[in-house]
Parts: sequence; structure tokens; C-alpha cells
Amino acid sequence: MEVLFATSNKGKMEEAAEILKEAGVKVRQYAFRYSEIRSDSLEEVARDAVQAAYKRCKQPVFVEDAGLFIQALNGFPGTYSSWVLKKLGIKGILKLMEGVHDRSAYFEACVAYQEDNYTIAMFHGKCFGRITEEPRGSKGFGFDPIFIPEGENQTFAESITLKNKLSHRYKTLLEFSKSLKLRR
Amino acid sequence: MEVLFATSNKGKMEEAAEILKEAGVKVRQYAFRYSEIRSDSLEEVARDAVQAAYKRCKQPVFVEDAGLFIQALNGFPGTYSSWVLKKLGIKGILKLMEGVHDRSAYFEACVAYQEDNYTIAMFHGKCFGRITEEPRGSKGFGFDPIFIPEGENQTFAESITLKNKLSHRYKTLLEFSKSLKLRR
Repeated sequence: MEVLFATSNKGKMEEAAEILKEAGVKVRQYAFRYSEIRSDSLEEVARDAVQAAYKRCKQPVFVEDAGLFIQALNGFPGTYSSWVLKKLGIKGILKLMEGVHDRSAYFEACVAYQEDNYTIAMFHGKCFGRITEEPRGSKGFGFDPIFIPEGENQTFAESITLKNKLSHRYKTLLEFSKSLKLRR
Repeated sequence: MEVLFATSNKGKMEEAAEILKEAGVKVRQYAFRYSEIRSDSLEEVARDAVQAAYKRCKQPVFVEDAGLFIQALNGFPGTYSSWVLKKLGIKGILKLMEGVHDRSAYFEACVAYQEDNYTIAMFHGKCFGRITEEPRGSKGFGFDPIFIPEGENQTFAESITLKNKLSHRYKTLLEFSKSLKLRR
């Protein structure tokens, strides 16, 4: 079985291919130009994107969207995480969090999978944790250097093993993979 | 002549009606649900929105989009201004600007007007100025209390006369109004 992954991100592509391989599913990258909608809901963004992708490619395809939701900032940067990272960087987030006591946050990922004209399946994964006072570690990408998962002492950027095991994206892809296995 | 204004904002509606009246144009509010696209360009956002609106209403219609672009923050919050205001507030912007020497910023507005199946006209207006160290004034809305236009000493929230005369939105609507006058 082959499914397309509509993404321009090579790192995400490799991660997904690795996880879905175990379900006997081959993943092929599908690059397509598309304007994401604005919404505070990852699910809405992913659902709209996968519908646009399916309309174009007419074969089983999935999209993945993720974001960092910081409690004290009303869920900022949320579904706009990559845009905010580009504009303000990690520094901007730490500045906004200066002197803020409640540092709780979570990463969330969402996969939307469209198989045919009628069926869209959604998968979610969250990873709860906290925002550090300063960046730590150089692995991973995005906000990894300032996020420590619950019950741990290292950031995602300090331990790739930690990230692979606990990450929102890993959990979500795993759910997706299990579901594909059942369908086959 | 009557044109529709696709907006859910009553304040914007009244402002537009007032300005376009002088061109002999009647403005009627057109409320429609629509997911704005993500883009760093006001023009792209407005163009997509007006096309969606025209498809629905099939009569002359315009949309207006605006944002605050802060130089030292790489144009943040830009086309996401209202979302950022909701999440971080004016306080968040001032926190990001703490200790920042270059306080230059501009407001930009863009009107997209679709008259028939083929014609879309775009109008732009900018107002250059600077970000204050603290909020001042209680008039207007949005980021008005922290924006002082070039060559002035008061924020948009301290002087509504100033805002009405200099604002990006006023300039843009005026251009639009002139153009409608010529078309008639």
C-alpha cells in the first residue's frame, strides 16, 4: 500500500516514512502549493488541507500539522507556530515569557488522512510539558530547545531519543499507522 | 450605485459608508462566513477573500484588510494583527519591544473590490509611525494606543481627528472612493 504525504518538509517526510514502514505502508512525498486557512484549530487547518490535496491527487493522501500552545499566552503561537518562529524566533517567545510563573505548554499534532471521496480520518497527539527559561540543546528543530516534556529534565533539543519517544508527532503518526494496519 | 462590504466589523462598516457616501455610493454590509488564507501579504489575503465573497453574492463587493507591521519584529504582527491582539494584547507587543531602539512601524490597509466576473481592483494605504513605550489614549481600537504617526506626538487612541485624517484605512477608502466616482 502506498499513501502520499502532502508536505514540503523533508524531516517530517523521513519521520513519517520510518513509522509507517512498520505498518507495511510506503510513504511518498507529495509537494503541492496550497494556502492554509486561518484557524485556531489544528483539526480545521488539516482537514481543509487534506481535502485540497485529495482533490488534486485523487489518491490516498495525508497532511500533518502541529503547534506549540502556551497556557500563559492564551495558546499562542498555536496553529501559527512556524510563522511566529520565523518572525520572533525562540528569543521572542522567551521574552514574552519573562517573569511569567505558569510555564505550562503542550505540543499538539494532527494528521488528516483522506482515502477516497468520502472518508477523512483524523488523528491527534499531545505532549504536555513546560517552557524553559533559556534555550538548551541543538538537536531537533523549531521550539524544541525551549520545551521540556512532563516528568523529564531535558529539552527535546537535548535528547532526540526523548523526542522520538514522547513527541506529539510520533504519537499521532503511531495512531495513524495502527489504523492503516487495521484497514489493510 | 450600491456596493457590498464583506465585513463583520460594524465600526469599519460605518467608516466606509461615511467615506463612500461622498462618491455617491451606498454601502451595504455583507456578512459571510469564510476562512481567510494565511499569507504575509495583505493583498493576497484580500484578493482571495473578495473572490470568495463575489462568488457567493454575484454583485459588486469589496473587502478590507489591515495590519500593523513592526520593523524590529520582522513585520510582526502584520497580516495576523487581530489574532495577535487577541492572544497577546498590546502588552505582549510592548513586551516584545522592551529595550528595542528601532521603534518604527507602519499600519497598512488594503481594499480589494470585485465588480464582475473579470475585474478586481486593489487599493492600498500606509501610515508610517512609531511604537510608543506605553499605551496612551482610549479612543479607536486595536493597536491605536501604541502607535504615533510620523511627525505627530499623539497616538491614534489619543486623537480620533488625527486618526481619521492620517489613517491607512482612510487613505485606502479615499482612493477606492475616487475610483468608484470615476467609474460611474
